[in-house]
Amino acid sequence: MDLEARIHSEHPDELRLWLRLLTCTQLIETRVRSNLREQFGTTLPRFDLMAQLEREPDGMLMKELSRRMMVTGGNVTGITDQLVTEGLVERNDVEGDRRAYRVCLTARGRKAFAAMARAHEQWIVDAFASLSAAERATLAKLLGRLKSRQKTMEEETA
Amino acid sequence: MDLEARIHSEHPDELRLWLRLLTCTQLIETRVRSNLREQFGTTLPRFDLMAQLEREPDGMLMKELSRRMMVTGGNVTGITDQLVTEGLVERNDVEGDRRAYRVCLTARGRKAFAAMARAHEQWIVDAFASLSAAERATLAKLLGRLKSRQKTMEEETA
Repeated sequence: MDLEARIHSEHPDELRLWLRLLTCTQLIETRVRSNLREQFGTTLPRFDLMAQLEREPDGMLMKELSRRMMVTGGNVTGITDQLVTEGLVERNDVEGDRRAYRVCLTARGRKAFAAMARAHEQWIVDAFASLSAAERATLAKLLGRLKSRQKTMEEETA
Repeated sequence: MDLEARIHSEHPDELRLWLRLLTCTQLIETRVRSNLREQFGTTLPRFDLMAQLEREPDGMLMKELSRRMMVTGGNVTGITDQLVTEGLVERNDVEGDRRAYRVCLTARGRKAFAAMARAHEQWIVDAFASLSAAERATLAKLLGRLKSRQKTMEEETA
């Protein structure tokens, strides 16, 4: 289904633009999910969780991790448990707080993530292959303005 | 959290662009969800389902409706049941097929949807208010090229 098919001529152009933006995002995300499944037998929430940990060599507290994972939802505790069972992630005690622990990638997890991240980069480069570098720069600039606007609106509401 | 914060300088510009696209979509979608909840006490899957029905005055079979609703997921049967209970949607028998029925908006559902659709249009117009008409046209053109590319890739894989 093409979301834009919903649009009538009396709709404002912004509505068509929004549905096009949504469609682009959904198509790319669907492809990323399907490539992760087929090529690495993994899911986007698992990939995102490992991506967060990869940036924090000292590991993260579960509550930090949950906050950052808002993106793709997913059950952070459940995913962490799975990855621990598979030896890709480990839990380490936090000195001075017996109830808390930090979650880290294991050496194997780091290696597995690096392979996925390389492939993921290539999928994304491919996704944008119909645009020249100059066009990508224009798109980035326009989306940057759109994003600033949403952030401002978010702050005004908060 | 800003997704773009994940990006290092050695990452291809496409990756930053992708995270920016994803962020714009998520920010706008989050605002739409929160406005629907606060101003109309409803959800995006309910709004989407009613939007589908509004385009089909003769109603839709459940399987058509489910297929089109892929967008926001959601339990189509459960949502339909709720909307029927609230008198916004009705089920009508299909002549010649005793097991099937068509789902339609009621007059009240149509009126309720019209009010939401007007507000939704305004939220989307607001979301793009930082771009001029010419900039929106450029954005639409570039996203159109991006979308065609994804569609082509989808067909090649299928």
